[in-house]
Amino acid sequence: MAQEDVFKKLVAHCKEYGFVFQSSEIYDGLSAVYDYAQLGVELKNNIKKYWWDSMVKLHENVVGIDSAIFMHPTIWKASGHVDAFNDPLIDNKDSKKRYRADVLIEDLMAKFEGKMDKEVEKAKKKFGDNFDEDQFRATNTRVLANKEKMDAVHARFVAALDKNDLAELKQIIVDNEIACPVSGSKNWTDVRQFNLMFSTDMGSTAEGSNKIYLRPETAQGIFVNYLNVQKTGRMKIPFGIAQIGKAFRNEIVARQFIFRMREFEQMELQFFVRPGDEMKWFDAWKKTRMSWHKSLGFGKEKYRFHDHDKLAHYANAATDIEFKFPFGFKEVEGIHSRTDFDLSQHQEFSGKKIQYFDPELNKSYVPYVVETSIGLDRMFLQIMSEAYQEEKIEKEDGKVDERIVLRLPLALAPVKLCVMPLLKKDGLPDKARTILNNLKFDFNCQYDEKDSIGKRYRRQDAIGTPFCVTVDHQSLEDNTVTIRHRDSMAQERVEISKLYDIIEAEVSMKKLFKKLK
Amino acid sequence: MAQEDVFKKLVAHCKEYGFVFQSSEIYDGLSAVYDYAQLGVELKNNIKKYWWDSMVKLHENVVGIDSAIFMHPTIWKASGHVDAFNDPLIDNKDSKKRYRADVLIEDLMAKFEGKMDKEVEKAKKKFGDNFDEDQFRATNTRVLANKEKMDAVHARFVAALDKNDLAELKQIIVDNEIACPVSGSKNWTDVRQFNLMFSTDMGSTAEGSNKIYLRPETAQGIFVNYLNVQKTGRMKIPFGIAQIGKAFRNEIVARQFIFRMREFEQMELQFFVRPGDEMKWFDAWKKTRMSWHKSLGFGKEKYRFHDHDKLAHYANAATDIEFKFPFGFKEVEGIHSRTDFDLSQHQEFSGKKIQYFDPELNKSYVPYVVETSIGLDRMFLQIMSEAYQEEKIEKEDGKVDERIVLRLPLALAPVKLCVMPLLKKDGLPDKARTILNNLKFDFNCQYDEKDSIGKRYRRQDAIGTPFCVTVDHQSLEDNTVTIRHRDSMAQERVEISKLYDIIEAEVSMKKLFKKLK
Repeated sequence: MAQEDVFKKLVAHCKEYGFVFQSSEIYDGLSAVYDYAQLGVELKNNIKKYWWDSMVKLHENVVGIDSAIFMHPTIWKASGHVDAFNDPLIDNKDSKKRYRADVLIEDLMAKFEGKMDKEVEKAKKKFGDNFDEDQFRATNTRVLANKEKMDAVHARFVAALDKNDLAELKQIIVDNEIACPVSGSKNWTDVRQFNLMFSTDMGSTAEGSNKIYLRPETAQGIFVNYLNVQKTGRMKIPFGIAQIGKAFRNEIVARQFIFRMREFEQMELQFFVRPGDEMKWFDAWKKTRMSWHKSLGFGKEKYRFHDHDKLAHYANAATDIEFKFPFGFKEVEGIHSRTDFDLSQHQEFSGKKIQYFDPELNKSYVPYVVETSIGLDRMFLQIMSEAYQEEKIEKEDGKVDERIVLRLPLALAPVKLCVMPLLKKDGLPDKARTILNNLKFDFNCQYDEKDSIGKRYRRQDAIGTPFCVTVDHQSLEDNTVTIRHRDSMAQERVEISKLYDIIEAEVSMKKLFKKLK
Repeated sequence: MAQEDVFKKLVAHCKEYGFVFQSSEIYDGLSAVYDYAQLGVELKNNIKKYWWDSMVKLHENVVGIDSAIFMHPTIWKASGHVDAFNDPLIDNKDSKKRYRADVLIEDLMAKFEGKMDKEVEKAKKKFGDNFDEDQFRATNTRVLANKEKMDAVHARFVAALDKNDLAELKQIIVDNEIACPVSGSKNWTDVRQFNLMFSTDMGSTAEGSNKIYLRPETAQGIFVNYLNVQKTGRMKIPFGIAQIGKAFRNEIVARQFIFRMREFEQMELQFFVRPGDEMKWFDAWKKTRMSWHKSLGFGKEKYRFHDHDKLAHYANAATDIEFKFPFGFKEVEGIHSRTDFDLSQHQEFSGKKIQYFDPELNKSYVPYVVETSIGLDRMFLQIMSEAYQEEKIEKEDGKVDERIVLRLPLALAPVKLCVMPLLKKDGLPDKARTILNNLKFDFNCQYDEKDSIGKRYRRQDAIGTPFCVTVDHQSLEDNTVTIRHRDSMAQERVEISKLYDIIEAEVSMKKLFKKLK
């Protein structure tokens, strides 16, 4: 199945089984905003807990905070967001549609690349085993013609971005006759900068209200609280402050389901270190974070680092942890050595001294910062897209059955077990409910008595429930039940009194913690 | 100590020990917005978990969701918030300060009441034991004069609110010569309605952006997802949808620390029932929710119901659960029978049929809704204000010591135990760290080796840590430690291998669950 189809099916599955709904769907939706549904919220909360516990609980020198979305507007002056957090936008005068100029140009380059790949595919089919792709690419005139065009656009594009030259961005669009994807018109406005922050008015005085912003990142909430946390928590460098929270960006191009949303959630650590020690900690956090991702058990070939060549103004080193989504390798987490940029800016803009007195060095300094920043929604999408499997099952009679199973890491599964009476009579439902009532304090449980056992298993497979417990007539006699495992579909007869231990051993988050390095 | 002083001390304590900071403090703060600091976030998360688990995990027919803050703007038309979610505001033309007209009038009535109380106090002192307050209030001319003034204002005020008569509100202010508290000026503008919703622009097309709102309540996020949750979750009426999330109100009068903030967090359940069954469920949820509050162990005399005489346009019954804060009985939770108002409105405004087919009745209807809505930040404040205690401790030598102790419910305490080596040498720190590393997967732990044991105990008392574990030389020989209990301050010698069981038995949320009715 093509990866694109897998992704479409996944999105449909998220809706059908209550993981993710389009926001305001009965009002025909709100673009690039999504709601987490009854199972999605449980999975999301479990991811949050796993991240929080492995960052805050397991690291003696990391504490959390939960700062407000509303912050003093000068903070976004200091951070650079008011002046430089922009997208270059262009409007088509005929269709009235608005686009990111850089994305239009990137799409053009992708088109050239697509043409080259098509030539290669054709030749591959024609020449079969004897085909030398490298040689073909180096000599075929149609490939070379496209490559030349692409390289020319690329060179101008990089130069224009480098100089922030909006006129040149427009000229690239004009020169390459890029048309509006909706109308086909080439009648463009100039390219303008468009700030990605949402603003609102906080009114409290008659003189007028104050313009404030919805935070575009959670990091600044940590920086402005640095002094208070360090002092009241008696923290010693190196130490970290972690935060999970919403952030907002007025994205023009919001694509790929929950991958890029206007309202999203971040899980960030800002780790404060001695100036000069930052590269050591940058490397250490790269290892720690990669180990966290790999602990989920999706296979190490799914992950890679992507080091940044071009660094943001605040960074002296940066890398992404990329995950192989159905639509290719994409960033799920960024690790950045942010130097003392943010704290120094806040020192300057607030007029407060933001320094740490280091007793070992016997001097004060503005700490350096290493950041790990992960998109919670991307993490959710990554886990769902990896867990979603369509399987063929060979049955005893030789026929082939199919099932959809969510192979979620057991500790993250929204529902841990489903208790099912074999029949809806003979006291089996009562027995099943007794079991449920004993286990519901410990695990998120479901109860299901409708349809055949096979159908009920399929429903639980489709939402990733690790265990199904079936109560039958024998259960009434000897207090045993059948427990069925999601992944192996194996069934075993066990004593009811052992259920807690069997399930806890598999679904506890401790099992994940122990894989962390 | 006066209750007002207790409150001031509590606010200072929240800052000093890392529970709550003023937002953007280094920029001189953002009014009525607060950040949860390193211990506050843990307490807040524990409160959330206790609410969520007792609503969602323990009720088979309740599921959760997490809907976005951004919603389609028509939703707030349908809910009535665009037209009717207003405060009556008035500006003073000289000071340029803005006030809520209703609050100015309420303050005036409080002033009359204060004068009456003062007369009573004076007389009490004068007459001593023989003083009959009721008789005094009924006969004293100065008391009666103030009472007459107050009653007159009250009658006009209630009538004006009832008719939403803004001109009359202004006239009450003018007639009673209410002055601006800042400038003393009586030069007022007219009273105008001021919508409490924050708005922002979501720009995605060239034609202009769309005005959207930050949700002023989480409830509507549940209502617009009702159909999807019911269908994909195969829910049968009666069932509930729970949600925890941020909401935003542009309050003009934001008072009492985190009690009323512009950005706050709600924990809401919307429970969908058959029309006609709503009063039965209203009563049932009143009991369930009151039992939840009382399970925290602060004493039942701290709570009371306050039934609403005047109902909101959507309700046919409403009550508040009030808690006795240091500043008096105040609402922490509202329980409302919302009828089919919201779902019917969304049916009308969205054009989608929002109905439930009831197989038992063999007919379709718009469900009725019973809501339980609790302010998470108020809950936090309630728990902190009840837990904060200043105690005198009689020592063996007859001297009196003092301690501040946060008597937090053990399951909610941010830190569960602190491990302390008696001395910073002889291998005691290593031994302490080994214990810590074994327990940190299960509990939020701290390590402290600084200052005397007594000082370290005080620090842990002040943040509400249930257990302190001290490692001494004997520990190296026989693997025992001293465990010290926060509330009783009792100490006992126990085997290290038993620590997990001892602590878990006390701090597990299951202990709270079992108190629920």
